Amino acid sequence: MRIPPAARRIFLCIFCCALPLAGAAQTEPANESVRIERVIGGVDVPWALAFLPDGGFLVSERGGRLLLHKDGQTREVGGVPKVRARVQGGLLDVAVARDFRRTREVFLSFAKPRPQGGAGTALARAKLSEDESALTDVRVIFDMRGGGRSGDHFGSRIVEAPDGNLFLTIGDRGDPKKSQSLAHHNGKIIRVARDGAIPPDNPFAPPALPEIWSLGHRNPQGAALDLAGELLINEHGARGGDELNRIRRGANYGWPVISYGRHYSGAKIGEGTAKPGMEQPLHYWDPSIAPSGMAVYSGKLRPEWRGDAFVGSLKFDYISRLDADDNWREVGKIATKETARVRDVREAPDGSIWFLSEGNRAVYRITPQ
Amino acid sequence: MRIPPAARRIFLCIFCCALPLAGAAQTEPANESVRIERVIGGVDVPWALAFLPDGGFLVSERGGRLLLHKDGQTREVGGVPKVRARVQGGLLDVAVARDFRRTREVFLSFAKPRPQGGAGTALARAKLSEDESALTDVRVIFDMRGGGRSGDHFGSRIVEAPDGNLFLTIGDRGDPKKSQSLAHHNGKIIRVARDGAIPPDNPFAPPALPEIWSLGHRNPQGAALDLAGELLINEHGARGGDELNRIRRGANYGWPVISYGRHYSGAKIGEGTAKPGMEQPLHYWDPSIAPSGMAVYSGKLRPEWRGDAFVGSLKFDYISRLDADDNWREVGKIATKETARVRDVREAPDGSIWFLSEGNRAVYRITPQ
Repeated sequence: MRIPPAARRIFLCIFCCALPLAGAAQTEPANESVRIERVIGGVDVPWALAFLPDGGFLVSERGGRLLLHKDGQTREVGGVPKVRARVQGGLLDVAVARDFRRTREVFLSFAKPRPQGGAGTALARAKLSEDESALTDVRVIFDMRGGGRSGDHFGSRIVEAPDGNLFLTIGDRGDPKKSQSLAHHNGKIIRVARDGAIPPDNPFAPPALPEIWSLGHRNPQGAALDLAGELLINEHGARGGDELNRIRRGANYGWPVISYGRHYSGAKIGEGTAKPGMEQPLHYWDPSIAPSGMAVYSGKLRPEWRGDAFVGSLKFDYISRLDADDNWREVGKIATKETARVRDVREAPDGSIWFLSEGNRAVYRITPQ
Repeated sequence: MRIPPAARRIFLCIFCCALPLAGAAQTEPANESVRIERVIGGVDVPWALAFLPDGGFLVSERGGRLLLHKDGQTREVGGVPKVRARVQGGLLDVAVARDFRRTREVFLSFAKPRPQGGAGTALARAKLSEDESALTDVRVIFDMRGGGRSGDHFGSRIVEAPDGNLFLTIGDRGDPKKSQSLAHHNGKIIRVARDGAIPPDNPFAPPALPEIWSLGHRNPQGAALDLAGELLINEHGARGGDELNRIRRGANYGWPVISYGRHYSGAKIGEGTAKPGMEQPLHYWDPSIAPSGMAVYSGKLRPEWRGDAFVGSLKFDYISRLDADDNWREVGKIATKETARVRDVREAPDGSIWFLSEGNRAVYRITPQ
């Protein structure tokens, strides 16, 4: 029987302690024993990594280039939509459709420029040509309402749900109040069908924006399915309030009404750390680590990591391991000279864990030792 | 498009304020304008009320009698399982299957006596004979592990989910620590198929008890589906911590690690009011009202009550109305001489709201005026 990661942690303690969730010791995360090898270098502000099913991988560069590496060669893929590459914006996530072999489809998120200036987070579907040289049939299937002139908080991770719908995370675009408004896409996770249509079981209806799946986010830049197929995200909070969250239909994650963080000025945020009707994180990082991409690990090469979340840290130059069996505590870290400004973390089909280092302009491959 | 009650509250404020969820004024609940008529009297410590589809209703008495009222006559139904009627235990909830016309099935929960003394919460399925005189084919489809000698906190509300599975609420039986253990049924909501089998999508697997759907409850004595078909429950907390909760698969509602209540001694409970990984209530009552049965209203006779929860108070002798469109705030109350120790609240097929008064030993019918 399938056991969600959130549940499995409790098993360890069922028969040995009375309050298994209450007494976790706050020990320092241990350094994981791993081998790291560089796959390719020369990637310029890389943002996302996606594996192709028959070998090779795609890397997006924030500046607007999409790279394809295969058979020892890296080349640029043409046909990428025009992006606004300023501050945190640009070409952002890339994901390969589960049925890529048949459809050749990929999904891209990006800062889509506005005629009047500024940009909003958008999601496009495209085909990779048979010769792998270009995207064709590029179609924007979602484009956030407004967007604003801020260069911050685009969110932008794409996840293909088990049912085939697409999740896209959207940051608050520097306008926190809109995270609580159903009339704005800022600070939301949206869910659309692959053609951009609204799935009939989305939780909100007009006059709310019907793409909204959850609200109250600040800047979710990591997202992955857990092994039960449920959505996990991590998001940049205010100081001391970065979060790992399990996303539930229609739920409110509280920003900026509640947060474990404080304003960078030290001032309290909103009403505190909790409020009836708003979700608690699974884990929060204090101090903040500036979490980026995330992978939930299959356990293929190291069974004791099964279900755990590996989250990149832009700020402290490491990859965090959060133990699904131990209340999502940060139990391990991978911190080497290679893990400089980790921007994305993905599991490869062979069970190795790959990451992008913005600091080293490189793609790396981790294998447990 | 369907809109869950939790979402609809936000619509009102979408276009008029920035933080609609943060600023709800804490005004006193208003007295509702209603008419109350007595339907029958002479019921002895009534616990639950259930309508039959072709007229008439069942009332359980905690002492062990099941009554059927129809065509102006009340009579006792035979064949009820043996119960342990002590303190809070006895014959507890009764529910009529949605397909009763075809199957004649009803569900009962009760304090099932143990050979060694004490009792545990159990759930039975039975048929009501064609002549309505007795239960036949009584089958216990769930019986909690252990149970203990305490007379307190049986929980016991039964809800038939839209998918046909059955939810049963179980209190902590006076042993709070077990509410956090997946090796015990205490303080859980369980979910079983109508024949007692474990639905394949239940969240936990052995060695956890696989009937468990959610954990961390204290004493949930009210439960109902909202208009979107999702489970809401209310539960007795410690002093100042009675809760309304939306129940989610595999989630932990925190008792006794977190609570808005305090021990009756005034001492703090557990770790405070919130913790990452544990659910927040939709609403909590401080002071505690001792919440009993609950109905979610269809809106049939008063459209502005659509989706609202009506919760009986044993302690303050009233029925509370929580507004689904206003963050589940307690906006209204029905408090009359009839509402003495309200034990159950149900909506009748005609849209009237019925309740049981333990204080008046009677069944009443409310119509909005």
